[in-house]
Amino acid sequence: METVLEPFWQRFLPAIDDEIQSILASDDDDYRLYYGMMAYHLGWVDESFRPRQERAGKRIRPLICLLICDAAGGEWQQALPAAAAIELLHNFSLIHDDIEDDSVTRRGRTTVWTLWGIPQAINAGDSMFALAYHALTRLSQTLIPAPSVAQIWQIFTEACIRLTKGQHLDMLFEGQDDVSVEAYLKMIGGKTAALLAATAEIGAIVGGANRETQLHCEAYGRNVGLAFQAYDDILGVWGDEEKTGKSTASDILARKKTLPILYAMGQSSELRAHLARPEIDVERVVQLMDSAGAKDFALETARQYSDAAVAHLEAAQPAGEAGAALRHLTAELIRRRS
Amino acid sequence: METVLEPFWQRFLPAIDDEIQSILASDDDDYRLYYGMMAYHLGWVDESFRPRQERAGKRIRPLICLLICDAAGGEWQQALPAAAAIELLHNFSLIHDDIEDDSVTRRGRTTVWTLWGIPQAINAGDSMFALAYHALTRLSQTLIPAPSVAQIWQIFTEACIRLTKGQHLDMLFEGQDDVSVEAYLKMIGGKTAALLAATAEIGAIVGGANRETQLHCEAYGRNVGLAFQAYDDILGVWGDEEKTGKSTASDILARKKTLPILYAMGQSSELRAHLARPEIDVERVVQLMDSAGAKDFALETARQYSDAAVAHLEAAQPAGEAGAALRHLTAELIRRRS
Repeated sequence: METVLEPFWQRFLPAIDDEIQSILASDDDDYRLYYGMMAYHLGWVDESFRPRQERAGKRIRPLICLLICDAAGGEWQQALPAAAAIELLHNFSLIHDDIEDDSVTRRGRTTVWTLWGIPQAINAGDSMFALAYHALTRLSQTLIPAPSVAQIWQIFTEACIRLTKGQHLDMLFEGQDDVSVEAYLKMIGGKTAALLAATAEIGAIVGGANRETQLHCEAYGRNVGLAFQAYDDILGVWGDEEKTGKSTASDILARKKTLPILYAMGQSSELRAHLARPEIDVERVVQLMDSAGAKDFALETARQYSDAAVAHLEAAQPAGEAGAALRHLTAELIRRRS
Repeated sequence: METVLEPFWQRFLPAIDDEIQSILASDDDDYRLYYGMMAYHLGWVDESFRPRQERAGKRIRPLICLLICDAAGGEWQQALPAAAAIELLHNFSLIHDDIEDDSVTRRGRTTVWTLWGIPQAINAGDSMFALAYHALTRLSQTLIPAPSVAQIWQIFTEACIRLTKGQHLDMLFEGQDDVSVEAYLKMIGGKTAALLAATAEIGAIVGGANRETQLHCEAYGRNVGLAFQAYDDILGVWGDEEKTGKSTASDILARKKTLPILYAMGQSSELRAHLARPEIDVERVVQLMDSAGAKDFALETARQYSDAAVAHLEAAQPAGEAGAALRHLTAELIRRRS
């Protein structure tokens, strides 16, 4: 698998980080911490702002954006401003998520708010949000026609709103006992799928695809996001720690409201009672979920999204090596891992 | 004074709030709290989301935007999307400021984070930021030429970045003992002046003014912001509570680092020692500030900004009743209040 993706990664990843880095560049010493916190979050520097050799995060969204542009017959370099904007938007949301979820670490590193305090971390997220839009302004320096640039601004902005709506529902549901599967899917539709949908649609627009293909790409991105989350939720209950890095039943212990757990709660009052106890008997909870058919339901849901993603990708007819790479990446992201 | 401004306020204020309200409108009950928190912050509803009769905030920025558009010979209605975007951006920054500053009340009302918690309030600010950009997308439905729309997006985005930079410096300075007057002016240049500068420049662009006039308007807005802050800082030390609503020496008691206080600290080591004490002798501090010439310095600084604002406004040659209203509003905002 690596052989198909590797050449693209080698070309795209440094270009993406260069594009983002040029947006965060400043020689004004007064803003050393301002830009430093963002560079830290992106993994370029450590907490003393000394350079690190690795980035933080996999840059999946900008990679998909560039691959789709390329596979639609466009020049991937033209999509770099949009790809950078998408990655910055994603990372702005992570900086704020970490505060909102009280998370001390992300990707094995201390979170921004833990190091520099909540007030500065809120503002670091806001700054990255603003700089995401700054990245987008560079689209006007490309060869992309003005109406397409306007369309991208609109799609990007719509994705920002959906992202905040998804995050809102996610936090709201934490305090609710009766969250339906439908409401959960609406939530991840905003929190996980909206930005991937915009990513793929924007890649197609920059690539010069027609409107029908753009919409297939949008649906592809959306379904990839939903399928990815559904499989991730399955791993959170039935995953094998050695294979997946997720400890078995970690979501049950964390009392997360994920797809299979919400489904099972809707089926079994005994399960609801078990989950309400101060100490959770994980083995019993998994048994109850299994007999409620929660794994089958979640797998079936994930498969439907996964199949829809593949169908829309094929309908978009991604061409050449970039097309092959997209198919491989999609399989990697939403392969049936359980 | 009221006679010149009143007809404009009666026309503009409902139009501005209608424009913003149409952006925040939703009949999806799942997002009742999402939109409710924003409507609460803007003053349209109380904390149970029952309608209130007054707005919160004076809508100064959108009013200036519309007045400048009108005074440049444009149709003020065309500027409504931009005016709404500017007001939403300003209010996003206030929602986050209140968290960052640990402020329990604003405009005599409980702040969003105090009512709904920090996580939801961070996200409410983010949502308002995204919706500000959504407001801007409506510019493409106006008669404004596409290149001007692109220019407005750019100016707006630049203002967003400057706002976050100013906020960053403001929080950074709180923990520093040796903040220079120069650094302070840089901070308020971002925190207070950048959005007013963008407001006025955008109003001129929509009004169809030439580039020279646009730049005079930008400089007008920037200097209004700086002058306003400088006078506000003077009131924070020497203001008369009955006249201004600011209690005498309130900034000294709050240990704020404002223009006259920073100037005086740079002049007098005795003052620095006084301000470092656990209990502040306000009378003695004011005496030391007076003999350091801090009031004269701050007044002179404020006057320079104020004069520059008026000079740039006149150079922009604002026409008609809107021009007269702008002159009056400017005098109200930056009149020599001490």
